[in-house]
Amino acid sequence: QGILERLDAGEIVIGDGGFVFALEKRGYVKAGPWTPEATVEHPEAVRQLHREFLRAGSNVLQTFTFYASEDKLENRGNYVAEKLTCQKVNEAACDIAREVATEGDALVAGGVSQTPSYLSCKDKTEVKAAFRKQLEVFMKKNVDFLIAEYFEHLEEAIWAVEVLKESGKPVAATMCIGPEGDMHGISPGQCAVELVKAGASIVGVNCHFDPDISLETVKLMKEGLQAAKLKAYLMVQPLAFHTPGCGKQGFIDLPEFPFALEPRILTRWDIQKYARKAYDLGVHYIGGCCGFEPYHVRAIAEELAPERGFLPEASEKHGSWGNSLSMHTKPWVRARARKEYWENLKPASGRPYCPSMSKPDGWGVTKGSKELMQQKEATTEQQLKDLFQKQK
Amino acid sequence: QGILERLDAGEIVIGDGGFVFALEKRGYVKAGPWTPEATVEHPEAVRQLHREFLRAGSNVLQTFTFYASEDKLENRGNYVAEKLTCQKVNEAACDIAREVATEGDALVAGGVSQTPSYLSCKDKTEVKAAFRKQLEVFMKKNVDFLIAEYFEHLEEAIWAVEVLKESGKPVAATMCIGPEGDMHGISPGQCAVELVKAGASIVGVNCHFDPDISLETVKLMKEGLQAAKLKAYLMVQPLAFHTPGCGKQGFIDLPEFPFALEPRILTRWDIQKYARKAYDLGVHYIGGCCGFEPYHVRAIAEELAPERGFLPEASEKHGSWGNSLSMHTKPWVRARARKEYWENLKPASGRPYCPSMSKPDGWGVTKGSKELMQQKEATTEQQLKDLFQKQK
Amino acid sequence: QGILERLDAGEIVIGDGGFVFALEKRGYVKAGPWTPEATVEHPEAVRQLHREFLRAGSNVLQTFTFYASEDKLENRGNYVAEKLTCQKVNEAACDIAREVATEGDALVAGGVSQTPSYLSCKDKTEVKAAFRKQLEVFMKKNVDFLIAEYFEHLEEAIWAVEVLKESGKPVAATMCIGPEGDMHGISPGQCAVELVKAGASIVGVNCHFDPDISLETVKLMKEGLQAAKLKAYLMVQPLAFHTPGCGKQGFIDLPEFPFALEPRILTRWDIQKYARKAYDLGVHYIGGCCGFEPYHVRAIAEELAPERGFLPEASEKHGSWGNSLSMHTKPWVRARARKEYWENLKPASGRPYCPSMSKPDGWGVTKGSKELMQQKEATTEQQLKDLFQKQK
Amino acid sequence: QGILERLDAGEIVIGDGGFVFALEKRGYVKAGPWTPEATVEHPEAVRQLHREFLRAGSNVLQTFTFYASEDKLENRGNYVAEKLTCQKVNEAACDIAREVATEGDALVAGGVSQTPSYLSCKDKTEVKAAFRKQLEVFMKKNVDFLIAEYFEHLEEAIWAVEVLKESGKPVAATMCIGPEGDMHGISPGQCAVELVKAGASIVGVNCHFDPDISLETVKLMKEGLQAAKLKAYLMVQPLAFHTPGCGKQGFIDLPEFPFALEPRILTRWDIQKYARKAYDLGVHYIGGCCGFEPYHVRAIAEELAPERGFLPEASEKHGSWGNSLSMHTKPWVRARARKEYWENLKPASGRPYCPSMSKPDGWGVTKGSKELMQQKEATTEQQLKDLFQKQK
Repeated sequence: QGILERLDAGEIVIGDGGFVFALEKRGYVKAGPWTPEATVEHPEAVRQLHREFLRAGSNVLQTFTFYASEDKLENRGNYVAEKLTCQKVNEAACDIAREVATEGDALVAGGVSQTPSYLSCKDKTEVKAAFRKQLEVFMKKNVDFLIAEYFEHLEEAIWAVEVLKESGKPVAATMCIGPEGDMHGISPGQCAVELVKAGASIVGVNCHFDPDISLETVKLMKEGLQAAKLKAYLMVQPLAFHTPGCGKQGFIDLPEFPFALEPRILTRWDIQKYARKAYDLGVHYIGGCCGFEPYHVRAIAEELAPERGFLPEASEKHGSWGNSLSMHTKPWVRARARKEYWENLKPASGRPYCPSMSKPDGWGVTKGSKELMQQKEATTEQQLKDLFQKQK
Repeated sequence: QGILERLDAGEIVIGDGGFVFALEKRGYVKAGPWTPEATVEHPEAVRQLHREFLRAGSNVLQTFTFYASEDKLENRGNYVAEKLTCQKVNEAACDIAREVATEGDALVAGGVSQTPSYLSCKDKTEVKAAFRKQLEVFMKKNVDFLIAEYFEHLEEAIWAVEVLKESGKPVAATMCIGPEGDMHGISPGQCAVELVKAGASIVGVNCHFDPDISLETVKLMKEGLQAAKLKAYLMVQPLAFHTPGCGKQGFIDLPEFPFALEPRILTRWDIQKYARKAYDLGVHYIGGCCGFEPYHVRAIAEELAPERGFLPEASEKHGSWGNSLSMHTKPWVRARARKEYWENLKPASGRPYCPSMSKPDGWGVTKGSKELMQQKEATTEQQLKDLFQKQK
Repeated sequence: QGILERLDAGEIVIGDGGFVFALEKRGYVKAGPWTPEATVEHPEAVRQLHREFLRAGSNVLQTFTFYASEDKLENRGNYVAEKLTCQKVNEAACDIAREVATEGDALVAGGVSQTPSYLSCKDKTEVKAAFRKQLEVFMKKNVDFLIAEYFEHLEEAIWAVEVLKESGKPVAATMCIGPEGDMHGISPGQCAVELVKAGASIVGVNCHFDPDISLETVKLMKEGLQAAKLKAYLMVQPLAFHTPGCGKQGFIDLPEFPFALEPRILTRWDIQKYARKAYDLGVHYIGGCCGFEPYHVRAIAEELAPERGFLPEASEKHGSWGNSLSMHTKPWVRARARKEYWENLKPASGRPYCPSMSKPDGWGVTKGSKELMQQKEATTEQQLKDLFQKQK
Repeated sequence: QGILERLDAGEIVIGDGGFVFALEKRGYVKAGPWTPEATVEHPEAVRQLHREFLRAGSNVLQTFTFYASEDKLENRGNYVAEKLTCQKVNEAACDIAREVATEGDALVAGGVSQTPSYLSCKDKTEVKAAFRKQLEVFMKKNVDFLIAEYFEHLEEAIWAVEVLKESGKPVAATMCIGPEGDMHGISPGQCAVELVKAGASIVGVNCHFDPDISLETVKLMKEGLQAAKLKAYLMVQPLAFHTPGCGKQGFIDLPEFPFALEPRILTRWDIQKYARKAYDLGVHYIGGCCGFEPYHVRAIAEELAPERGFLPEASEKHGSWGNSLSMHTKPWVRARARKEYWENLKPASGRPYCPSMSKPDGWGVTKGSKELMQQKEATTEQQLKDLFQKQK
């Protein structure tokens, strides 16, 4: 059954987690470029991660094609070997995802994301051509449906949806925005409306913000759709990092991004709260983005097991709410084998010299990525240093 | 070259990371029992984790035989399928480790750890028999050397070393103790002395405490050996969790153990400080335990690259000190591509309602595991509840 | 010169600090009732506090008549001696304030605050009678102007202003509300407009919230007045406690209120930032409420000394920005004698087991004080316990 | 009855709080110099603070003669008016203390503290002369007993005790040291022994550290005395600031000293725990130093009321364990009128961007004050700046 049939039938669809972050920790993706050449270089590593998400309960395996547009891969050319063409990377991604999907009951979704072409002000034709190049691979490999994700600019997201719709397959579209809307100040509600009008059957947000902020944004999208009397399924794939007080552009601007986010990682119990809250909001496609490891996805599946009627395979290795501790030697550890314990625990950071929140970096008036890209060349090293001093 | 030849030659040997925690997050190990039946059930997952540590720079691949003694596996029998005999689990662990080790320049170490037999007061003969059963597999599979690790009681650690020494292979021994010593109050210095006398060529600590506390303990071991005019190599494989203020039995007693330790996870920069500090202390076998992911091991290898003269394979996907950010669109993110930035950053937890430290659980006077095991049966549910109330 | 003449002339008027909190710590006011019988019982203590504020730079000494309406004093009758009539308490307050005011260049302001009569739903006539009773004393003692402060309900604040205006003296009116408005959801902007229409020449907020939140509220009042094309002076007298994340009714609902607020106390440097921010917003009557000690008021006067042209008397015992440390024996303490040091310092709490924020208590849907008063009788002890359990 | 008669009779003697910090906040003492010229300049302010401590339960009023030795006052001469001779300041201090002491049942204690003469290496004769000059005033004014307090160097403390003993009056001696001992590494135990041998009847610590660390130090003193079979009464007057992790020289080296210590201030409940712990340790002279306000002293008296049989006068304005909240309008505030509530509350700092602990400033190897004084001249501004940079 396809994605829309499942959603039409009232099923809860569980997404997967964040590949670039998980594979960066495993040694296969470089932070900064965040490109997915591992599909060709180390397919076994990508395959294993897909398999773990599948076991954890994912109903959708997204092809590992984040930042796999031709312009992005070329842009990072200094370290991507010549023969890693856009086509090869995307094809390998599709093959791996399909191979693992057949091991269980999962759909394969081909994914596109925002492009350097758009940020460097290329025109609509050129930007669309970049998406179309990836789409050709997805069609050849016959993915089950398509996702346009990680867009900061509504305009580009619409262009992506328009291209993906040419395929005739269902299209989901998620933007990496918060409650303040896209980089031009377009509200989440309006973003949702425009994306549905452009052809998306499923809309929502992914990345950049923690579950609380992401659900607040999806709520605004839901209200926007209701006001416009449009119908679409809602989807959410947030960070597995706590990001209170981050600015409009999310966790990128936090001083900890991307190499010191550890203290912000969500526990499995945080995830269970998120899954419940998402479901209560009426979101039926619930997954994760950067920071989501397989056990986080499993926590979604376990929280919603009563509604779905089954547990994922990986729950064989997990006691609900810590009950696997009930055999522990120490009575005070056995006393942790209870839902109330984990639900109410306020975990310590173990870092008494660190604060609990940090101010996002950035210039006084946050600029859109497009403007920043244009100014990039002009920023000399001295300016950088001045800036950095001022930030502290 | 064997482990002792390498150390004799002045090489820095890098260990691997913690399998039970890493595979728990990937869905293959159950917290509580922490047994390694995945070697038989899901060899591909174990193989992939070995491979990631190898790429990250590990010179030693430990067989995934933690808690794989027969008594432990039987003790957890309710969920371990009948055919997962102790022998099968250990053999599979050896085969997988060897297979991956040959992909690079790594040694395979067979490992044993503390047993339920000892804790339930079985006699020396019975406890030694349990170690010998695992040793037979290690000999058959011809591992390169042996590790007795995760012992809270010196007595049992000595018994383990004595058995392993029967093999004629080099033996390393690490206890999971802090500066206060073993569960009977035997000091780290004396523990080290006794282990060397029992036949260990390499001694140190693993698990239970963070790098700072672990190095403090190893320092005491070093001083004990010097005072006794004994010579041995030093080894340290700590947690990748910050554990200030935890009690004598380490992170087990922290209220966050084992399902809410996320805010305590070390960053790669914390690891670099640890690696440098360990090296400066004269420790030449430097690895990790629970919480260590491949990128943590890579951080050891990167910090000590000047001394070792080379980077690990996985550094191909990692810029030193964040330099892969130097191409970022945003100037303030580019400004993070510097050593001083990451070295001085105090990362926020993103959890303003959580404290930075927590009081360890436990009874007023901490008892040894052995005594606890004996009292286990007598502890009624009501007592547990009373206890739990009092803890709060 | 009167208050309006000073403000008309462009002067910055500095208010005083919080009497009930300061005198509670000195042993003269009981937390809970918060009544000012100390004016009769211990005039020397009240006099000394007035004097300290005067020395610190206060241009206005408010009579210590908070909660000194007859209904409030009677309501607390179990511990207020019979002869402490409303009249005596208010008269003594006026005499003390006047005595100290003549020691410097300060005005005396008679103050009224919200009444139990209003909360227990007495009618307009009765509530106004309570204010009028205090006003009679203020007229007899010829205070310089009048302040209606600490009102949660706009309606009652208007009644107070109407009564005070009968005197012909200038009237200031401040509500203890945040950006969400009064207890019936009337916005700060509308509150300001209504108060000015009722006769107030100066409007703003006092108590309940920290400087940041209070200034946010005053900004909304300013915008409301501008939209209504009304002119009035702005006034702010916030807490000297940090209260991020407190609910609509402010610090009362924080679990630390009123006996564990210490970690939230503002430093003098926090106050200097507040004074600058208030001035930049166009607020010309700047003072403090609960938590403000004399040195906090001095910090306002020191921050705005460049604009005002002079320092307060108490600055004789204070070096600007820590410069009194420049003679210290230790070089690292001398290094603190700099503005940049104190401006950028993030002070530690010394409490690693405590969080940095706390959730406000209260029922799901916060009710107005009036409703609460009515339900008070019905709340049995058991309900209280249930509630308390639920809060945790 | 004199101090020793009271202690001999088993009475608990309650000291007073910290004058320099309290009067700095009230505008009468300058941080940095910390000298007590207010006794002459503003006697009413000193008198009022004495009175508040008396009401709060203090059995001893210490003359406000901290840093009132002639050399210190001259050293700070640039701002102390010429006519404020050492004699006048000390005489006024005695007169004020005696005046207030007669309002209740309190003793007057004349106090001396460490001198610049000692730090700048003057010889024994000269240093003793400084103490003797103050003692002459104390004799003339006939104080009840004498306290040598705030000494970092045992040698100087002994000299002070020797001088004070010339009077024939009982002498108490407290050093401002922690568990590591005095600035030359002399242990607390040995310090206590030497002070008793020099003539002190009461020994202990004051200032520099929080109650927990101070009681740890007093415990070492007690053990030292027991080992030496000497008998003396124990005394403790710690800070009312939490100072975990501060170095050997205490709170002076904390980056927050002295202008940003607010988040570290102890609550009244912290004080009650301290008073109980001190009493349980066998300390019968229990008071406070910097940070202690009248309500902190009252908390000592309230905690030990069961043992002492009475409450202090100021408890008339204080409900035990928050019971004055039992009449509050809001049920959740009424629910705070309980001992368990305040005992278990972990108060939030309201500062999510601040850490909970800070690293003390200072050079790698902490030097004694004497050495620092000598190096003071040589430290150029540039060195200071370098140092400051390095500290961050």
